Amino acid sequence: MFQKLKDHIARFVEIDEKDYAEVLEYFTIINVSKKQNLLTEGKICKSNYFVSKGCLRMFFINDKGIEQTIQFALENWWLADYTSFSSQQPSGFYIQAVEKCEIITLDFSRQEELLQRFPQMERYFRLIHQRAHSAFQFRIKFLYDLSREELYNDFSRSFPEFVQRIPQYLLASYLGFTPEYLSEIRNKRIS
Amino acid sequence: MFQKLKDHIARFVEIDEKDYAEVLEYFTIINVSKKQNLLTEGKICKSNYFVSKGCLRMFFINDKGIEQTIQFALENWWLADYTSFSSQQPSGFYIQAVEKCEIITLDFSRQEELLQRFPQMERYFRLIHQRAHSAFQFRIKFLYDLSREELYNDFSRSFPEFVQRIPQYLLASYLGFTPEYLSEIRNKRIS
Repeated sequence: MFQKLKDHIARFVEIDEKDYAEVLEYFTIINVSKKQNLLTEGKICKSNYFVSKGCLRMFFINDKGIEQTIQFALENWWLADYTSFSSQQPSGFYIQAVEKCEIITLDFSRQEELLQRFPQMERYFRLIHQRAHSAFQFRIKFLYDLSREELYNDFSRSFPEFVQRIPQYLLASYLGFTPEYLSEIRNKRIS
Repeated sequence: MFQKLKDHIARFVEIDEKDYAEVLEYFTIINVSKKQNLLTEGKICKSNYFVSKGCLRMFFINDKGIEQTIQFALENWWLADYTSFSSQQPSGFYIQAVEKCEIITLDFSRQEELLQRFPQMERYFRLIHQRAHSAFQFRIKFLYDLSREELYNDFSRSFPEFVQRIPQYLLASYLGFTPEYLSEIRNKRIS
């Protein structure tokens, strides 16, 4: 059940085979239905979420009542509101399952014990956050550099399966434009 | 000379006083003149930079030849192109001193040895990247949620000293608008 997480950890750090059982005890598997919320605005983000199967998204609700998606997490990605998670203060975000998901959670209260006991896991999470840091640097670059149409085309080239898999209104929200504008671009590409 | 970095590390992790001399041996202090580049496009980002005094910025040059700032680092912040740094492949970015700076560098080649020898430093960098991860989540939220004027007003409220200190054309570039538009907003606030 924890195979995906175990394989992922093994890509970044070395942990003795005999230690894995103990490492994995700190994690919990949960099954989440489509559109189920793992976090809602005003609540504390108590866990860090690893997507073993499915897709999560993080969004906020703006003044007009519109859900604005800021991040997706597919298989092998971690997601949390790290401000709320690290401070254990209420969040301004929602985390929701885009599809039926299998999620592996690491609770804030247990994380500290895990990291104390297995310092390799500090390295693992350092590398995870460093990779996210790189990804955000590029995301800001693209947001500033590309027109909305280029943004969509670049995204489609980089993540073709993702673009097929995700509902178009969520993809539009993530890229910062309306679903109508997105179908306009898509029609242009097809014609 | 390393006091700022030592104080910063001590805010996040515990290192025995007797170990500090050895930890700090992995770092180098450099003095950088205003507008000097620490990284240029096409080169490998060989170091991670801690701002002990002054201010750095990371930017790219777009198709129109315009410098687009994507990140600033003031005192006590780390900055690198983490894609280039972690892969040791050529960068698409520039890192430049906004002011005369004192920078503490950690070379990629030495980092691994430091982290092996002092696993607390894995924790330190995990927390640094986790904090950056939080900051980027909020930055994306603000970029999507706020009008350009609100973005400037919010930024001025949150970082008043920074807004005073940074040349206005750089601030405009960071916020994604023209210097002319920035002075328009500023004049509106004053009148």
